[in-house]
Amino acid sequence: MNAWYAAAWDTELKRELVPRTICGKPVVMYRKQDGSAVALADACWHRLLPLSMGELHGDNVICGYHGLEFDDSGRCVYMPSQDTINPSACVVSYPLVERHRFIWLWMGDPALADPAKVPDLHWNDDPEWASDGKLIKVKCDYRLVIDNLMDLTHETYVHGSSIGNRAVAEAPFTATHSDRTATITRWMKDIDAPPFWRGQLGKSGNVDRWQIINFEAPATIAIDVGVALAGTGAPEGDRSQGVSGFVLNTITPADEKTCHYFWAFARNYKTSEQRRTHELREGVAKIFGEDEIILEAQQIAIDNNPDHVIYNLNIDAGSMWARKLIDAMIAEEQQQAIAAE
Amino acid sequence: MNAWYAAAWDTELKRELVPRTICGKPVVMYRKQDGSAVALADACWHRLLPLSMGELHGDNVICGYHGLEFDDSGRCVYMPSQDTINPSACVVSYPLVERHRFIWLWMGDPALADPAKVPDLHWNDDPEWASDGKLIKVKCDYRLVIDNLMDLTHETYVHGSSIGNRAVAEAPFTATHSDRTATITRWMKDIDAPPFWRGQLGKSGNVDRWQIINFEAPATIAIDVGVALAGTGAPEGDRSQGVSGFVLNTITPADEKTCHYFWAFARNYKTSEQRRTHELREGVAKIFGEDEIILEAQQIAIDNNPDHVIYNLNIDAGSMWARKLIDAMIAEEQQQAIAAE
Amino acid sequence: MNAWYAAAWDTELKRELVPRTICGKPVVMYRKQDGSAVALADACWHRLLPLSMGELHGDNVICGYHGLEFDDSGRCVYMPSQDTINPSACVVSYPLVERHRFIWLWMGDPALADPAKVPDLHWNDDPEWASDGKLIKVKCDYRLVIDNLMDLTHETYVHGSSIGNRAVAEAPFTATHSDRTATITRWMKDIDAPPFWRGQLGKSGNVDRWQIINFEAPATIAIDVGVALAGTGAPEGDRSQGVSGFVLNTITPADEKTCHYFWAFARNYKTSEQRRTHELREGVAKIFGEDEIILEAQQIAIDNNPDHVIYNLNIDAGSMWARKLIDAMIAEEQQQAIAAE
Repeated sequence: MNAWYAAAWDTELKRELVPRTICGKPVVMYRKQDGSAVALADACWHRLLPLSMGELHGDNVICGYHGLEFDDSGRCVYMPSQDTINPSACVVSYPLVERHRFIWLWMGDPALADPAKVPDLHWNDDPEWASDGKLIKVKCDYRLVIDNLMDLTHETYVHGSSIGNRAVAEAPFTATHSDRTATITRWMKDIDAPPFWRGQLGKSGNVDRWQIINFEAPATIAIDVGVALAGTGAPEGDRSQGVSGFVLNTITPADEKTCHYFWAFARNYKTSEQRRTHELREGVAKIFGEDEIILEAQQIAIDNNPDHVIYNLNIDAGSMWARKLIDAMIAEEQQQAIAAE
Repeated sequence: MNAWYAAAWDTELKRELVPRTICGKPVVMYRKQDGSAVALADACWHRLLPLSMGELHGDNVICGYHGLEFDDSGRCVYMPSQDTINPSACVVSYPLVERHRFIWLWMGDPALADPAKVPDLHWNDDPEWASDGKLIKVKCDYRLVIDNLMDLTHETYVHGSSIGNRAVAEAPFTATHSDRTATITRWMKDIDAPPFWRGQLGKSGNVDRWQIINFEAPATIAIDVGVALAGTGAPEGDRSQGVSGFVLNTITPADEKTCHYFWAFARNYKTSEQRRTHELREGVAKIFGEDEIILEAQQIAIDNNPDHVIYNLNIDAGSMWARKLIDAMIAEEQQQAIAAE
Repeated sequence: MNAWYAAAWDTELKRELVPRTICGKPVVMYRKQDGSAVALADACWHRLLPLSMGELHGDNVICGYHGLEFDDSGRCVYMPSQDTINPSACVVSYPLVERHRFIWLWMGDPALADPAKVPDLHWNDDPEWASDGKLIKVKCDYRLVIDNLMDLTHETYVHGSSIGNRAVAEAPFTATHSDRTATITRWMKDIDAPPFWRGQLGKSGNVDRWQIINFEAPATIAIDVGVALAGTGAPEGDRSQGVSGFVLNTITPADEKTCHYFWAFARNYKTSEQRRTHELREGVAKIFGEDEIILEAQQIAIDNNPDHVIYNLNIDAGSMWARKLIDAMIAEEQQQAIAAE
């Protein structure tokens, strides 16, 4: 809970009340007259009606049942038929940062909400990169999405027609990690390019392909991907004969078995081609639709097999590290909670 | 349970089997050849198939599975391939009164079923009044409907386009009560009439408006409503320069989170105008549709916030009294049950 | 569990992956290149994705997530990025027999899976008989279907327009049983034929009608049915002046409240008339559709009345014996399980 989670794309918030469940809690979001964003608990203090069913009144929200009015800090500033306002009358206001085109909320202890800890997805609004993406709601534990992204072997089987080929399933990789991050690096040298990358590169001939998966706990993954003509020095750092992209992902639990999956694809080549941006967004959306089917089926299978012992293979090194870092954050938070009592 | 609950409008029952869940129990209702109504438990004694899936045979019901036949007292009078009938073979027959255009059932101890205790909704079939209404099934605890009706402040926010205006939210009110009833009286003097009442009155000029909410435990509310030209003596009892109506409501639990909400609107002016009766029924139905949305959202919010402490405002005086009287009835019933054991 | 259950019609299995839940367990079925059928647990050993979402590769199944490959015995024979294969890497392979046009699975202890114990439904592929049928998924405990079939009194009430008439509800019957079988024999002599049988017989005049219900525990029922012109000796064994059919039924639990109901209607007259075969299948399907409605309503009623004490009538002798034999099998299995520990 003590972490920043993406709650919306910047474009989703306007002068309207937007309801969304974040980490199990109903939240209502909107922009104030000055354009800044607000996130309040989406349940009136009085009789619990979702505030998102009410109306905006300047920078305040009016409940749609009995007209209680709350300001952007969550404090009640009007009650019907009442001269004095109960001082306890307020709803939670969540710490919020707008950065890298996402609205980030801090659902845990607000005293710990440090804006410096917002995950790094700067490619999403860096002028050197063209980026676009979507939000999908997936009916699975958010950690299954992380498992999926930390092991790209699945591209061969799930995405065979676009980005997968045998090389991904067979290539060796290395794994490194720090306190809050884990990185899986995989180079596939001198291979035939899969259809997607052949199209982006626009050249024939074998390629060196890379996938560098950067996980930042608890739920953000930026994957450095691309291909360059084989033997032109990409593995050593010279990507000038290739094309480079970032698959940006951040996943927010809605509840224990549903999550909001925000993703974008950023590239640093032909950044002014609007049509390419559009086609890439729709193409990647199709690929992630393939994952969505797998992930929801996997969640059902896990629910149906509660006693199944999970074995890890070599390919699971990345998701093992990601889960270890998430578990460490949870353990730390629980210790703090105990210490606080 | 030891109370009369409305189970159907009189017009709903014909020479057909009508299934409905009342206070958690499946019931089948029908009319006998002489027109009188019957309510039996809707599960065959033998293999539990709903009797409502069978057929009427004279005044009896034949089960649609194996043909067991039950009379209007619930006694089994025929079994296939069997000469003698098991004396225990019967289904429950519920005490029933038809009054004020509703079918009332007593789901508790039949020995206590006193027809004198049927709630008073006589305006619904009084020749001095023209009345019509509907039944809606609302997915919420029936007590949320009572809360809704006991505080009409919500008209301002939920029904702003028809009957609500700022005056309702601001006007003072008085609350009185007896053992089984609670009354909220609110007079809004010398105000602009809201659109609905302006149309009914058919005159311009400010009005005195009244709302006198009469609650009869456990679940009946008759609201005396209307407007008269301001200053013509309505608050003192002379309503001759105004129009008067009664919003009749009685709510029956289906289960813990669903209820049958019977309502009607009765008026004592222009009672022979059929078109007005029709338009009033449809207009009020639209208003109650607005409440239905609020009530179902509130039930979901309550389920999502089980630990929320409910605070009461001044405006909640009516629902506080109603809930207090309901709780007293439940406590009394539980004591009787303990005493009986 | 230690019994053969029908899992599919023979025609349902091809060179494709077919998922189905049998006795609470997800199973994937397919045919190998030589035409023989295979049934594996439908959850990959690695991350539990249903194998039915993968692909056939020769006689093996490839998981659609990370490409693990399993042979027809369930053993994993390929893992991505891995030289050695974990010896524990396998999924359950269920004993399987294809007989009488059904695929039979043994979901219990494989050591006990004796093909000689497959229930006898030989009429379904006997050249002397023409047979055809369907599979319906019914949302009820499989034992309710058995109750239904063991007492054909219900024909009078549920199937009055086709095969039911008053005679069925009134005719006497005899009940016999062995360790694993129970038989109900009912002769209705010198009666008017119901519409269905009148059509099959193609002659006017009263008939002797028979229904001989043969139950084989735990879930197979073959009903010997037919009519012959009255007084021509059918009760004594001479059916030459009549028409004879078998209603074949075998019911497989999917879970506690859902079952797969396989049925067929076989006849030994006019066996080469394809049109009659087609019409009989569709006619019987319509009759079983009437049962499906009753059975699902009964299951809901049972769930709503958990405390209801079930009384048995004379007509329930057949289902009582069937349930007694099923209970004995379950008790035996539990004792074996205890002895094994």
